[in-house]
Amino acid sequence: MPLDEAGALHAYAVTGIGEIHPGDDLARQLADALGPPGSSTLRDGDVVVVTQKIVSKAEGRLVPLDHEDLDAKVALVEREALRVLRRRGELRITETAHGFVCANAGIDLSNVGDGWAALLPVDPDRSARRIRGALGRLLSVSVGVVISDTFGRTWRNGVTDVAIGCAGIAAVVDLRGSRDATGRELVATQVCVADEVAAAAEIVMGKDRSVPAAVVRGVPAEWRRDGSVRDEIIRRPADDLFR
Amino acid sequence: MPLDEAGALHAYAVTGIGEIHPGDDLARQLADALGPPGSSTLRDGDVVVVTQKIVSKAEGRLVPLDHEDLDAKVALVEREALRVLRRRGELRITETAHGFVCANAGIDLSNVGDGWAALLPVDPDRSARRIRGALGRLLSVSVGVVISDTFGRTWRNGVTDVAIGCAGIAAVVDLRGSRDATGRELVATQVCVADEVAAAAEIVMGKDRSVPAAVVRGVPAEWRRDGSVRDEIIRRPADDLFR
Repeated sequence: MPLDEAGALHAYAVTGIGEIHPGDDLARQLADALGPPGSSTLRDGDVVVVTQKIVSKAEGRLVPLDHEDLDAKVALVEREALRVLRRRGELRITETAHGFVCANAGIDLSNVGDGWAALLPVDPDRSARRIRGALGRLLSVSVGVVISDTFGRTWRNGVTDVAIGCAGIAAVVDLRGSRDATGRELVATQVCVADEVAAAAEIVMGKDRSVPAAVVRGVPAEWRRDGSVRDEIIRRPADDLFR
Repeated sequence: MPLDEAGALHAYAVTGIGEIHPGDDLARQLADALGPPGSSTLRDGDVVVVTQKIVSKAEGRLVPLDHEDLDAKVALVEREALRVLRRRGELRITETAHGFVCANAGIDLSNVGDGWAALLPVDPDRSARRIRGALGRLLSVSVGVVISDTFGRTWRNGVTDVAIGCAGIAAVVDLRGSRDATGRELVATQVCVADEVAAAAEIVMGKDRSVPAAVVRGVPAEWRRDGSVRDEIIRRPADDLFR
C-alpha cells in the first residue's frame, strides 16, 4: 500500500540565510530565502520554524562575555535568571522571566561570535507574531511561526528542540472530550503540537548547524489559530510537582 | 528558492493496521500494511515508529481493570511503579522498572477495551529489535524502529510522543567535539534524535487516533546504528537534579 501523501508531514531546511546582526530585518531575510512573492515556495498553512539564536541576534539580545571566563558566565546566568532551581558545578537549572525552566537561563554561546552571549528574546510569542505578520506582507501567505530553542529534559538524556514562541499555530491542542476508537472519552490528551513541530524541524536543521530555519508542511488545518507558548505551554510554578 | 528536497524529512501515517490482540504477529501486520516485498513502500533507512499501545497488546501486556474503579486504578499504578515520586489526587508521577519517569507507570486505558489496561512492554528496546528483525526478513529492508509513547513533561503543559525503545537508529547523537559555524567547539549538544523522530511521527498519527504507526523518511544516514533508549536516554537517578 502506498504511503498516504494526503496526511503526510514534510520538513525542509531553509538555506541561504546569511549571518544575522543586531537590527537586521529577519523576516525580510527569511522572505528572501523563501521568496520571491508569487513564486515563493511557502504555502498557506506552512509553519516556519526559526531558531532562537537568529531571533535573539536580530533583536540585539547580545551581551559581551568572555567565553573563557567561567565566573563571568555563571554570574551572567544568575543575573538573567528569575530563579535558580538547582546548581551543579557551572550548570544552573533556572526559571527565566518568561517562565521557562531550562539550563543557564537559555543563554547561548555557540554561533554568536567570540566575546558575545545571546539572551533569549524578551517576548518570543511577540517575536513570532512580528515575523508572521511580516512574512504575510512580504510573501502574501498565511503561515504559522514557531521560535524554537534547544532544551534539556529533567529525566531524559539528550536535548530536543521545543517552542519558546509561536504565532498563527496552536501551542497545545486540547483533545479532551474527543473519543478514542473504542468510543471511550480521551482524558489528559492535551498535545503540545508546537513542541512536536519544533522537534521535527530540528531534524532537518541539525544536519547542518548553520541552518537557522525550517519549513514544516502538512500540520493539520485545525491547528491554525492564534497560539501562545506563554499562555498554553508554560506550567505555572503552583501546578508543577518538582520545583 | 525551492525547498531543499535533498535534506528533507517526511512522515507518513501507516493506515490499514487492524485491531491488535495478544499473541498477534505485529511485525507481520505492519509488513502487510506496508508490503508486499519488492513493491513495499518501505526503503532502507526509513524509521518505522510504532506506538506502545499496539506493542503492549501484541505482547499480551494487558491486565484486567474496571476503568470506573479509581482505587483499583491507583493500586495498579502503585504496584507497577518501581517508585512513586509525587502524588496529586489520582495522579502518580512514577519511576518505572525501565527507568522512565512518567505519569501512572505508563499504564494505558484508552483504546485497549473496557475492562482492560495496557502495561508498558517489559523491554521496549527488545520489542523494537524484534520488529526490526522481522521487517527485515519479511520485506527485505533495513529500517530503524522506534517504539513511541506519550509522556508529560515536568515544566511544560501538554504531552508529546517520545521514544521508549529503539533499534537500528541512534537514541542520542553526540555532537560534542564538533565545531559550530564560527569554529567554536560545541558543548552539551547530545541530541535525543529518537524523541524527535517520535514527535514528528505523532503529528501524522495524531490526526486520527486509530493510526498506531508511522514511517519517518529522511533521517540522516549517520544515525543508523544499534541504538538503545535504555542505555542512551534513561537518566540515572544519581544524575538528575530533581528526583
